[in-house]
Amino acid sequence: MTVKAYGAHAADRPLESMDIARRPPGAHDVQIDIAFCGVCHSDLHTVRGEWAGTVFPCVPGHEIVGRVSAVGHHVSHHKVGDLVGVGCLVDSCRHCADCEEGLENYCDNMTGTYNFPTADAPGHTLGGYAEQIVVHERYVLRVRHPEAQLAAVAPLLCAGITTYSPLRHWHAGPGRKIGIVGIGGLGHMGIKLARAMGAHVVAFTTSASKRGDAEALGAHEVVVSTDAAAMAAQANSLDLIINTVAAPHDLDAFTSLLKRDGTMTLVGVPALPHPSPAVFNLVGKRRSIAGSMIGGIPETQEMLDFCFEHGIVADIEMIRADEINDAYERMLKGDVKYRFVIDNATLA
Amino acid sequence: MTVKAYGAHAADRPLESMDIARRPPGAHDVQIDIAFCGVCHSDLHTVRGEWAGTVFPCVPGHEIVGRVSAVGHHVSHHKVGDLVGVGCLVDSCRHCADCEEGLENYCDNMTGTYNFPTADAPGHTLGGYAEQIVVHERYVLRVRHPEAQLAAVAPLLCAGITTYSPLRHWHAGPGRKIGIVGIGGLGHMGIKLARAMGAHVVAFTTSASKRGDAEALGAHEVVVSTDAAAMAAQANSLDLIINTVAAPHDLDAFTSLLKRDGTMTLVGVPALPHPSPAVFNLVGKRRSIAGSMIGGIPETQEMLDFCFEHGIVADIEMIRADEINDAYERMLKGDVKYRFVIDNATLA
Repeated sequence: MTVKAYGAHAADRPLESMDIARRPPGAHDVQIDIAFCGVCHSDLHTVRGEWAGTVFPCVPGHEIVGRVSAVGHHVSHHKVGDLVGVGCLVDSCRHCADCEEGLENYCDNMTGTYNFPTADAPGHTLGGYAEQIVVHERYVLRVRHPEAQLAAVAPLLCAGITTYSPLRHWHAGPGRKIGIVGIGGLGHMGIKLARAMGAHVVAFTTSASKRGDAEALGAHEVVVSTDAAAMAAQANSLDLIINTVAAPHDLDAFTSLLKRDGTMTLVGVPALPHPSPAVFNLVGKRRSIAGSMIGGIPETQEMLDFCFEHGIVADIEMIRADEINDAYERMLKGDVKYRFVIDNATLA
Repeated sequence: MTVKAYGAHAADRPLESMDIARRPPGAHDVQIDIAFCGVCHSDLHTVRGEWAGTVFPCVPGHEIVGRVSAVGHHVSHHKVGDLVGVGCLVDSCRHCADCEEGLENYCDNMTGTYNFPTADAPGHTLGGYAEQIVVHERYVLRVRHPEAQLAAVAPLLCAGITTYSPLRHWHAGPGRKIGIVGIGGLGHMGIKLARAMGAHVVAFTTSASKRGDAEALGAHEVVVSTDAAAMAAQANSLDLIINTVAAPHDLDAFTSLLKRDGTMTLVGVPALPHPSPAVFNLVGKRRSIAGSMIGGIPETQEMLDFCFEHGIVADIEMIRADEINDAYERMLKGDVKYRFVIDNATLA
C-alpha cells in the first residue's frame, strides 16, 4: 500500500513530498489514518544526519495521533474508528526483562518509530509525517481526549511521556519541590504535568520574557537562571530537577539547588558534552545526576489517561506539511510555543 | 592540657612533632587516649594545602581509635577504659533535618575532625595524629573488636564508612552485582564489605598484578579495566558501582557496565574534573551518577558492629609517627596494602 509522506532523500536536502509503502495489517496490526504528527527536535537531528546512522529516505515523526482504519483479526484492544496514538517506538523484543516490566523503551532491541531496522520496505522504519502507519497493537495507545483536542494530544506521545516518566519515577507529587529547566517543547509539558501531580513547581529559564508564560503553564515560581541571587535563593531546596536543555550548559548551577539525596534527571542529549559536572556537588549532599528516555507503553497509556483526567494537552502551533522546513528553522531559534504539529490532511 | 602531636606549620613544610592543646572534658565530652590513627589521602591533600582553606598548624587524622581516659559527668554511653573510635566529624548543629536523621555528615555546620572552625585553641580542629583527643559523646563510636585488632579497626572510621554507607544506601546485598573501582584504601574495604553483605562483587583495577589480592579480599571477579574484552563482558550487568578512584578518568567506561536503573556512586573527589560523562549512557538506561560522603554517626556505629560481627578489619601497614612524610610519598605511588596506620605511642 502506497501513501503520501514528507521526508528527505539525503541529509543535505530539504524535506519534500514522497510516496512510501506501508505493510498490509498483519494479525496483530493496527492500521492508523494519521490525523496529526508533532514535530520533535529529534526529527530534525535525524533527518539532517546530525546523529550518526541516519538512513534515507528518512520520514521523521513520532508524535502520532489518528483514527484506526483497519485491524488484524487477532487485534483485541483497538477497533476501527478508535482514536489512537503512537509514540517513539513501534516494536521491541517483547520477552526481555525490560519488555516484561513494560519498559520497552529500554529494550536493547527496541524499534524506534523512524530510522530503525525493520523487515518492511525500505528496510528501516518511516515515521509519522505520513498519511498512514501500521503498528503492532502492543505499541498503539488509546486516546480518550475529545477529537477537537487531537492535534494538541500529539506532543504528549514524546514531549509528554519524556517528562512524565521521570516525574513519576522520582516521585513528583504533593510536598515535593520540582524544578523544570528549559521552557520549550519538553519543559512546557514538564511544568503542566508536575503541577497536575501536586508538586510545587519552579521553572528555570534564561529568558526573563518567558516568566509570564511559565506562570500561565502552572509554575509556582519562575527563576531566571542568569540571576545569581535568585538562583542562590533556591540552593539546597529542590527534590528533583527535570533538565530539558539539550545544549551544553553548566550543570553545577542546578545540582547545587538540589536537597540532600536530590536528583537532576537529564532528558536531553547534547550534541557536544556539557562541562564536566563538579563531583563535590554530588558527594557533599549525596546528590545524583540521572538520565531518562521517553517511557514504556503502559506508562505512556497512564500518562495519556492522566492528561485526559487533568485536562492537559500541549500548547501547539499547527502547520501544513509543506511548512516543515521553515518550522525546523524556527524551532532552532526557539520560535514556537511550544510544539509544531503537522496537519497530516495537508499531505494529500 | 598539652599533648604531643604530629603536623605541619605550613603547606610546603613536612610534618613534624609539635605540642598542641586539648580542652578539658566538658559535661558531655569524652577524652580519648589515641592508640592508633589511620592515614587517609585527605590528610595529605589538606596538610599540603592542595584543597583550598587549610589553616596551620595542621594536624591531620580522622581514623582514630583508642581508650577512654576521662568522661564528663553527663556522659552516659561511654566510660573510662572503653575502646572507642572517632571518624571524620567531631560536631554538627544537632538540630537540622540531617542531624535529626542521623546524617550529621551532611549537616551544613558539620565540624570535621581537623581543619574546621572550633572554639578551642587554636581556632580550628586538630586531628588524630596526637596523643589525645576530646570529643562530644555523640560523635564517639563504640569499638567491639578485641584490642589486638585495634590498629586495623582505625581505617574503618573513614575508608570503611565511606564505602559502607553507599553500599547500604543503594541496597548492596544478595542477588545484587556490585562493582568496586580501584583497589586502594577505600576499594579494599568496599570489596570486603560488599562481599560480607552477600553481594556478588566485581573488582576493577588498572593493575593486573592486583588480581590475586582482590580475590583474597573477597572479589568474585576481577576485571582489569584496560582489557576491552573483559570490560565489554560486564556491560549492562552491574546494579551498583562504588567508584573510589579520585584521579580524573573515563567514567563512561563504567556507567556502560550498569544495568538499567543502576547507579555509579563516586566517593572520591578529583583535584581536576573527570572527562565529562556521556549523557547518552545515562539517558539510554535510566542510569545515575551519584556521590556519597562518609556516613552519619548511627550508620558508622552500625558499620563498626557489622565489621565486628563479620570479622572485618582493614589490611594495614603500621608506621611510627616520624615515618609519616615517607608514608605520604609511598601513598602517592599506591605503595601500601592498603592503609598506613600510625602507632600513636611513637608520638611520645
